[in-house]
Amino acid sequence: MKLEPLSDRVVLKQLEAEETTKSGIVLPGAEKEKPQQAEVIAVGPGGVVDGKEVKMQVKKGDNVIYSKYAGTEVKLEDTTYIIVKQNDILAIIK
Amino acid sequence: MKLEPLSDRVVLKQLEAEETTKSGIVLPGAEKEKPQQAEVIAVGPGGVVDGKEVKMQVKKGDNVIYSKYAGTEVKLEDTTYIIVKQNDILAIIK
Amino acid sequence: MKLEPLSDRVVLKQLEAEETTKSGIVLPGAEKEKPQQAEVIAVGPGGVVDGKEVKMQVKKGDNVIYSKYAGTEVKLEDTTYIIVKQNDILAIIK
Amino acid sequence: MKLEPLSDRVVLKQLEAEETTKSGIVLPGAEKEKPQQAEVIAVGPGGVVDGKEVKMQVKKGDNVIYSKYAGTEVKLEDTTYIIVKQNDILAIIK
Amino acid sequence: MKLEPLSDRVVLKQLEAEETTKSGIVLPGAEKEKPQQAEVIAVGPGGVVDGKEVKMQVKKGDNVIYSKYAGTEVKLEDTTYIIVKQNDILAIIK
Amino acid sequence: MKLEPLSDRVVLKQLEAEETTKSGIVLPGAEKEKPQQAEVIAVGPGGVVDGKEVKMQVKKGDNVIYSKYAGTEVKLEDTTYIIVKQNDILAIIK
Amino acid sequence: MKLEPLSDRVVLKQLEAEETTKSGIVLPGAEKEKPQQAEVIAVGPGGVVDGKEVKMQVKKGDNVIYSKYAGTEVKLEDTTYIIVKQNDILAIIK
Repeated sequence: MKLEPLSDRVVLKQLEAEETTKSGIVLPGAEKEKPQQAEVIAVGPGGVVDGKEVKMQVKKGDNVIYSKYAGTEVKLEDTTYIIVKQNDILAIIK
Repeated sequence: MKLEPLSDRVVLKQLEAEETTKSGIVLPGAEKEKPQQAEVIAVGPGGVVDGKEVKMQVKKGDNVIYSKYAGTEVKLEDTTYIIVKQNDILAIIK
Repeated sequence: MKLEPLSDRVVLKQLEAEETTKSGIVLPGAEKEKPQQAEVIAVGPGGVVDGKEVKMQVKKGDNVIYSKYAGTEVKLEDTTYIIVKQNDILAIIK
Repeated sequence: MKLEPLSDRVVLKQLEAEETTKSGIVLPGAEKEKPQQAEVIAVGPGGVVDGKEVKMQVKKGDNVIYSKYAGTEVKLEDTTYIIVKQNDILAIIK
Repeated sequence: MKLEPLSDRVVLKQLEAEETTKSGIVLPGAEKEKPQQAEVIAVGPGGVVDGKEVKMQVKKGDNVIYSKYAGTEVKLEDTTYIIVKQNDILAIIK
Repeated sequence: MKLEPLSDRVVLKQLEAEETTKSGIVLPGAEKEKPQQAEVIAVGPGGVVDGKEVKMQVKKGDNVIYSKYAGTEVKLEDTTYIIVKQNDILAIIK
Repeated sequence: MKLEPLSDRVVLKQLEAEETTKSGIVLPGAEKEKPQQAEVIAVGPGGVVDGKEVKMQVKKGDNVIYSKYAGTEVKLEDTTYIIVKQNDILAIIK
């Protein structure tokens, strides 16, 4: 059982607090959007979105920083995922 | 008697609480939009919507996650349907 | 004396409560928009609307579900009509 | 002395209450926009408006239903006119 | 010393109350925008404005009706001018 | 040390109160935007801005009227500059 | 470990207060956006962003003025970065 995101959407799984600490990432509170570190679980096909060609730039397994408020939480078989549009992913952590 | 959605609209039928529990999907409350699991009942023809070509990506029978607040509830012969635009469907559950 | 809607507008006549009951349609209150069942009385010519080609998809006599708040009520010779844009029609009931 | 509307604007003259009664049109109060019956006095040239080609669909002498709040009242030589964009005219009464 | 408006802007000089009375124009208060009679003092070159070709339709010396709230007042050598976009000019008075 | 504005931005230096008085310009308070007289210090390269070709129409040394609220103040080596988009410049004073 | 910004995003590192003082830049409080001086750390690839071609105009090492409220703070290995869109960078300091 898995989530297949539509168009330019991306399914993320937030990194747990422990992992976050290990990786040395601290995400301070921001007023308008809380950046979050997450792993990419599934990537939509991209294509024409709202009349504009969108090419997917992230891939499964990437660690990314995203804007929390843009996403939607979904719990599937005891795991919580976040579905965002690729445009809400700010950067890849390498 | 059935609903034929126009353009890029999709008719959904929410999965009942029992089914939701069986499938292991739990949808936690989110402030801005409540994701929902539903079955696709009817799919509009797509085509040019608001001046942009839209290709339908879901089909009758798909189980999907959608954003509740974007839709409109309609009760037809004792069944409640939700009519959403395809863009309000976030992912297909497989 | 009749109404000829401009561009992508459609003139609707709401189905009366009795008819609504007969057809088995119940329209529960929704916070943002109240869906309504109505009969299509007149259809605009479509064409280029706001710089985009619009093709009319409903025809006179269709029973449709529409979003009430988008329309404008007009009373002409004791009959109340609602003028909506085609985009405010969600589905055709067949 | 007369008003020559620019681009896609139309100069209207509201039908007087007496006339409105004669024609059998009653315009019930609506929360968002009050539809109004008026006669078309002058029509702008249309053409490219906001980057989009607009073709004028009403002509001098037409009786129309328009959305009041979109227009601007102007009093010229004791007559009150309303200047609206053609897009604020909903239908022609024939 | 004079004002050269950029792109699709127009410099207007409001007609004085006396003149307004002579010309028979009375401008009743409107809630959203107060129409105003003014003389065109200078006209911008038009051209591509916000990605769209704009052709200037008014010329120096025209008497026009404009929407007050869209403009900016500037006092230059004891004369008050109003700078508006051409789109805020509703009609030419002839 | 100097500021090189990006794309369609312009660096302005407000004319001092003394100069303003000398030039005879008085800028009355307006509710939505306070027009301001300023000298152009540096002009961005223009080019494609937000998908639209922008051609710069002001040059270093021009005296201009601009809308204050659109700009951003920056103090560099004891001088205060205002960075605006060219679209916030209403007219050139000649 | 480093941040690779997507599309037209830019990773900035704010100049410390000491440096700011040395460079003579003082950034007065503004109501809507607080301009900030920062060093460019990483630059996204640009390309088609929201359907429009964006060419990156800043490069690693540039000192820039940016609008604070548009960005997102991220702390990575004890360093705080700000991720902005290039459009939120107002000028390069040379």
